[in-house]
Amino acid sequence: MRSPICAMLGIEFPLLAFSHCRDVVAAVSRAGGMGVFGAVRHTPEELREELAWIDAHAGGRPYGVDLIVPNRIAGKGQAFDGDRLIAALPEEHRSFVAGLLAQRGIDTADLDDRRADRLRFARNLDAAGAEEILDVAFSFPIRLIANALGVPPKTMLERGKAAGVPVAALVGAKEHALAQIAAGVDILVAAGGEAGGHCGEISTMVLVPEVVSVAGDTPVLAAGGIVTGGQMAAAMAMGAAGAWCGSVWLTTAEGEPDPVIKEKMLAASSRDTVRSRSRTGKHSRQLRSTWTDAWEAEGAPEPLPMPLQSLLSEPALGKVATLAQGGHDGARDLATYWVGQGVGLMTQTMSAGAVVQQFKADFVAAAERLNGLLEG
Amino acid sequence: MRSPICAMLGIEFPLLAFSHCRDVVAAVSRAGGMGVFGAVRHTPEELREELAWIDAHAGGRPYGVDLIVPNRIAGKGQAFDGDRLIAALPEEHRSFVAGLLAQRGIDTADLDDRRADRLRFARNLDAAGAEEILDVAFSFPIRLIANALGVPPKTMLERGKAAGVPVAALVGAKEHALAQIAAGVDILVAAGGEAGGHCGEISTMVLVPEVVSVAGDTPVLAAGGIVTGGQMAAAMAMGAAGAWCGSVWLTTAEGEPDPVIKEKMLAASSRDTVRSRSRTGKHSRQLRSTWTDAWEAEGAPEPLPMPLQSLLSEPALGKVATLAQGGHDGARDLATYWVGQGVGLMTQTMSAGAVVQQFKADFVAAAERLNGLLEG
Repeated sequence: MRSPICAMLGIEFPLLAFSHCRDVVAAVSRAGGMGVFGAVRHTPEELREELAWIDAHAGGRPYGVDLIVPNRIAGKGQAFDGDRLIAALPEEHRSFVAGLLAQRGIDTADLDDRRADRLRFARNLDAAGAEEILDVAFSFPIRLIANALGVPPKTMLERGKAAGVPVAALVGAKEHALAQIAAGVDILVAAGGEAGGHCGEISTMVLVPEVVSVAGDTPVLAAGGIVTGGQMAAAMAMGAAGAWCGSVWLTTAEGEPDPVIKEKMLAASSRDTVRSRSRTGKHSRQLRSTWTDAWEAEGAPEPLPMPLQSLLSEPALGKVATLAQGGHDGARDLATYWVGQGVGLMTQTMSAGAVVQQFKADFVAAAERLNGLLEG
Repeated sequence: MRSPICAMLGIEFPLLAFSHCRDVVAAVSRAGGMGVFGAVRHTPEELREELAWIDAHAGGRPYGVDLIVPNRIAGKGQAFDGDRLIAALPEEHRSFVAGLLAQRGIDTADLDDRRADRLRFARNLDAAGAEEILDVAFSFPIRLIANALGVPPKTMLERGKAAGVPVAALVGAKEHALAQIAAGVDILVAAGGEAGGHCGEISTMVLVPEVVSVAGDTPVLAAGGIVTGGQMAAAMAMGAAGAWCGSVWLTTAEGEPDPVIKEKMLAASSRDTVRSRSRTGKHSRQLRSTWTDAWEAEGAPEPLPMPLQSLLSEPALGKVATLAQGGHDGARDLATYWVGQGVGLMTQTMSAGAVVQQFKADFVAAAERLNGLLEG
């Protein structure tokens, strides 16, 4: 496909794959789309290793990196102090989480150790941590760098410009798009409220034309609920330059979720997700489970701000995931993962490369369907 | 456009306009779409008058009627007893509503009289009331009859079949679509959670392909957030047979809302709506206002089931609307009306007929945009 975004990114088909799984990233890039590696869970050393693997397996095709550097963050601007973060977890929240697990026969003695282990994530979210990650990212020939929450830090924009790497940013409202354009981002990702992970409330069907209407020459990628080439064509009929998809890769053969989660996703309907602050402290959409239900129930504590809530949820859900894999029923019920409403359309497992080819075929069929109506 | 739905309905362009305003209905039908008159607020006598007007002004083009006959309704199956309904309003709710108005300097002495007046609406929602409305509807040469909530009553399906009038039903989830098909409806209206009025939680972008995937030969109209021909093309790229739009007519020259409401809508962004049970007892999307905020606030009473909540909200909001028109500031702040997230894209007033022509132009442009990408 010849289009400005394809030229800008050096790709054939404007399907961008956000994934925490290096295999997905490389496979999508090889298939003519662009894989974008979610770096937030990794230390700088780990990220270097992952990107080296991707670089060696992407067949010389372009790939990108995605970070989360939120605007407002607990402790931003202060020196990183892990002990202070752990000490900031209220006893009410600790015991709520411990109770949730204990009620289902899960031992909670090691949660504090797991919290300490988790701190490297919080580390990436402060300014100095983010800078180290950027050092690693820009040491590879990346063709895109994205910020998943809010306006990218100035350093990311400057380094992108210096290296000739387009900077993308996710937006959930027209007002955010205007702020991003003013800050100088090169690509907007308009993410509807049906998206997995962090999301706003405006649906993709409304948000895409709204953002396109103010974006001028800045290309807009559509995100939120898109798991087929027909939906991608729909978004592009409304003026999007391409699609940014995350959920659809989760149930691919390569996808990172545990088999228990993949099985839940393949069985889920579009009504089996919930937009909740219980995982990260900001609203993010995820698979409904006894964990998310408990946080939504009356009397549950109010989720903490970022990054504190992750210090509660991730160590517990990490433990849950391990037990669920081992066949623990209570853990299986609690297990959850980020996914969008498009999960209802994800009903079979194929390889990530096959998903890209299916997108292309469905895209063409959708465009021909519309064209046929004009001729009819 | 030659398509099965155009043939089924006898129209040129598969844009259906749900409206409580007879002028909109006639104008859209004249322009090549199909106007569908929302009959629920009317007595049988009033409906007869409205449909006679539409029939005389639709230029011989097809038009339809939309009813609300919910599956579960307070008092369904019992003889209609207005006094019993009014007596069922808890004192907590009455005084909450009175307090909301009084705090803003609005006299509440006539709310009970207004409730009695309102009962004719509740009357239409019981079985005998609905039958009288159907008698009137089928006495006109309607080309479509729709039920806005749940599976249509058997009598509606039978009378539609006997008269050769397709029966449509709104669905907010794939599971609802399967139930509607089993019941024998002829057309599904897949309404996403961004829709104005009653709506579910699944977005249009996900719901349309989900419903299309199970609909077989039953045509699917896409609803929810659609206020432009580009969005209509997007929905049809995903397999929809056409679009069902409600919000976009509200700010037309003919649209029924008061000028205060129209002005609020033209100024609103897509974030200025809320999905709330506070107006009808079921979740419906409407313009955010101090009225909706108050019902969402902590300590507000839980909304009552249908049709009781309307007996609280409509008399109060009717009074508010009158005062808002007269320049009362508190009333202006309270004033609200149903509208979808597409309100953010509704920024200027034109005639309903001009909206249809704009849809056609935008539809063609969107289809050509996609086609150009294939050729590129």
